[in-house]
Amino acid sequence: MLGKENDMNRFFSQSFVTVEHLTGEDVTLVFRKAEEMRTLCEEKGGDDRLKHKILAALFYEPSTRTFSSFISAMQRLGGGVIPLNGMSHTSVIKGETLEDTVRVFSSYADILVMRHPDPGSIANAVEYAAKPIINAGDGIGEHPTQALIDAYTIENVFGKIDGLHILLIGDLAHYRPTNSLSKLLALYPNVKISMSTPKQVPMQEEVTSYLKKKKVSFKEYSDFQDILPEVDVLYVTRVKKEYMSESLYKQVKGSYIVDKTMVRQMKKKSIILHCLPRVDEIHADVDSDPRSLYLTTQVRNGLYVRMALLDLILRKAS
Amino acid sequence: MLGKENDMNRFFSQSFVTVEHLTGEDVTLVFRKAEEMRTLCEEKGGDDRLKHKILAALFYEPSTRTFSSFISAMQRLGGGVIPLNGMSHTSVIKGETLEDTVRVFSSYADILVMRHPDPGSIANAVEYAAKPIINAGDGIGEHPTQALIDAYTIENVFGKIDGLHILLIGDLAHYRPTNSLSKLLALYPNVKISMSTPKQVPMQEEVTSYLKKKKVSFKEYSDFQDILPEVDVLYVTRVKKEYMSESLYKQVKGSYIVDKTMVRQMKKKSIILHCLPRVDEIHADVDSDPRSLYLTTQVRNGLYVRMALLDLILRKAS
Amino acid sequence: MLGKENDMNRFFSQSFVTVEHLTGEDVTLVFRKAEEMRTLCEEKGGDDRLKHKILAALFYEPSTRTFSSFISAMQRLGGGVIPLNGMSHTSVIKGETLEDTVRVFSSYADILVMRHPDPGSIANAVEYAAKPIINAGDGIGEHPTQALIDAYTIENVFGKIDGLHILLIGDLAHYRPTNSLSKLLALYPNVKISMSTPKQVPMQEEVTSYLKKKKVSFKEYSDFQDILPEVDVLYVTRVKKEYMSESLYKQVKGSYIVDKTMVRQMKKKSIILHCLPRVDEIHADVDSDPRSLYLTTQVRNGLYVRMALLDLILRKAS
Repeated sequence: MLGKENDMNRFFSQSFVTVEHLTGEDVTLVFRKAEEMRTLCEEKGGDDRLKHKILAALFYEPSTRTFSSFISAMQRLGGGVIPLNGMSHTSVIKGETLEDTVRVFSSYADILVMRHPDPGSIANAVEYAAKPIINAGDGIGEHPTQALIDAYTIENVFGKIDGLHILLIGDLAHYRPTNSLSKLLALYPNVKISMSTPKQVPMQEEVTSYLKKKKVSFKEYSDFQDILPEVDVLYVTRVKKEYMSESLYKQVKGSYIVDKTMVRQMKKKSIILHCLPRVDEIHADVDSDPRSLYLTTQVRNGLYVRMALLDLILRKAS
Repeated sequence: MLGKENDMNRFFSQSFVTVEHLTGEDVTLVFRKAEEMRTLCEEKGGDDRLKHKILAALFYEPSTRTFSSFISAMQRLGGGVIPLNGMSHTSVIKGETLEDTVRVFSSYADILVMRHPDPGSIANAVEYAAKPIINAGDGIGEHPTQALIDAYTIENVFGKIDGLHILLIGDLAHYRPTNSLSKLLALYPNVKISMSTPKQVPMQEEVTSYLKKKKVSFKEYSDFQDILPEVDVLYVTRVKKEYMSESLYKQVKGSYIVDKTMVRQMKKKSIILHCLPRVDEIHADVDSDPRSLYLTTQVRNGLYVRMALLDLILRKAS
Repeated sequence: MLGKENDMNRFFSQSFVTVEHLTGEDVTLVFRKAEEMRTLCEEKGGDDRLKHKILAALFYEPSTRTFSSFISAMQRLGGGVIPLNGMSHTSVIKGETLEDTVRVFSSYADILVMRHPDPGSIANAVEYAAKPIINAGDGIGEHPTQALIDAYTIENVFGKIDGLHILLIGDLAHYRPTNSLSKLLALYPNVKISMSTPKQVPMQEEVTSYLKKKKVSFKEYSDFQDILPEVDVLYVTRVKKEYMSESLYKQVKGSYIVDKTMVRQMKKKSIILHCLPRVDEIHADVDSDPRSLYLTTQVRNGLYVRMALLDLILRKAS
């Protein structure tokens, strides 16, 4: 819970670091605001509600789509941006701590969007910042805005999230979006989560413990094809090469590839998600399937959800 | 031909990848719009006609001036930008295809301006993008916006392009702006093109074939000084070190240098162009010559022509 | 002196490369404008006075805070930015001279903010630019905007600068902000400057000569702790690793560290400044001391002073 129940301003001036603090009401508020943003974008492209606000995008790990969608979101709402992508060449190498950096940017910007390789680093940074911080990925920790995007995409297709069967496959050990999505799904009592990973890269124990504590129904499968016909959502993840040794990468690489034949077994009303970039874990012949939302709807929703969060955090509802 | 003849909206929502598709009417429309942009810049610096539109500048090869002039052009018209310069550190190294990247950016931006090392890559990307793409240089392929800038600069000085004698010198083998300019000049039946290159780096056969097919009068000279007194436009190019072996670079480097003595042989009413950066192929003592437009007029026209293209592509004339 | 005495437009269209050209009236004008910016930021976040103006941030050396504060400042005043941070991958490696670069950017932007590793390079660039340039640091030369920020911070706390005792400690040999601050303090006849450096990295002779010529009272101390109880301002600097050999760095590193015990000896009404990034030269236990302004007030003033300069240079007072 970020703010008070039924409070339109529960996100106002608050940092957003983990989905663990979200209530169902929080999620509903974000979804409703995202719908407003969709309409705004479709009708006018944007407006000036965040005029004279500045977003600092501090990405210690390089990023394309998270970085770019926040940059686009802020400008579509009339705000300005400080774009720092791949900060390894700046103050970091001069030896500055993350604590000092966020204190400094609190003077320049109204909101900080940060990516950092160390899990927990963003949560720590919040303690030192005078302005709200959005976690845009902390190593193999969380990626909470992506989880909201994924949940919003599911909700939009099925009209609900509760009761659905979601299958997560791939390198879940290093995949922060599925960490966040799994924890977010714990808000829905009748969700069923299935997981299938190469045996070397199972979902982190920290996440499965959380799910157990929240009494979420989840099960692990050695071969995801066995349950493909039952699932509503297939969530495919990339092998996170940059977080593993070369030898582990060689073992895991190419061990799960979703292709047209497999997708044929899925329900007619089901969807395929992937938070991208995609390497070879979904074959290109799946792209044109109407159930494949990863290159279109899911990405577009990324813009709406991030616009929604910026608006909720930076502007007080009257 | 991009749109219908005599249609003010021939560029609207269209990609711009090669000059080969341009008609004389297209070019005239761009020039007229560029004049409007010149007046706008001189009188007010810009306006808000592209407000709430977003341009994604996706430069896989690093760039200074093309990148910066598009960034400036978009903001002078009130739009926002996603500035990605030198993308080698992002999704590319994670293994994403160009096809996926442009599909993703179609969700974030209203127009994509792309530079990529592979000739033909931008034309291919257009097939996958849901938004228009401007080719900002595809390896040793084309640089169509630069050709329009160069042609606009020529037209502005001489009041015409047809009938002029244009001399291209240097490393034409690797120089995309002169590829595009040569092809663009094919629209004018009485233009005369001369070329002079070190023998190792002649104009690509693909371009000379195009010129032959279009019946353009062109001739190659071993020593450009022989015809300097006859030309209206001298276009000097840089040795594209980044596209050749070290040994080839050593052979070609410094083999053509334009200096004050040579320029003295040129007509009083003639001009010298170079699309920059310049290394040593034009001696600094030529810079102050009133015929040297490469550091001033030609650059400034780059801003106007790119503003013109953004306006024509993103806004429907009523 | 940049413009005429008592002239509100003394900065208009002028470059700002060194504090040596500033008069007391210039400084007062900047401070008054900075106050206006503080009010503007606090009340509205910014306005649109620089709409349709473009700032090109050309940083040949990477930068976090100077770059970001200028980017924020320009956008808070409604202007646009061309953000080029760490330009080593662009035209520079293609062999372009700084002279050509600034001529080109004079066509794209209304003002250039530049950082470059070579002292004097920005002053030289001004000769070739058709638009005003702000020096954002030229190697171990000057950092004039930082000096104004520091002086403004001092003035704000003490209500004056003249008569104060300012102690500069650390690697003054390579620290451009203290070069500029020392020269700026020469405007105040009764200022007292003390310096304490590791013996290997004394203040540059060029700066001490300037102070002598201007008859500024300054003195060097081997142990800064001896005079800590007397000073009004303690200015701590970082060891500029990037400007020295590894062996020199090892000698100097950690040779001066300000901690809580030392700060306890300072006057109640005194302040501690540091232009950041900070490594270990100020212990974290000093951060919470109310006299420590380096992570808060001094940084925030950076935004106001840079907004002030942009407004004074880009907009003619009527």
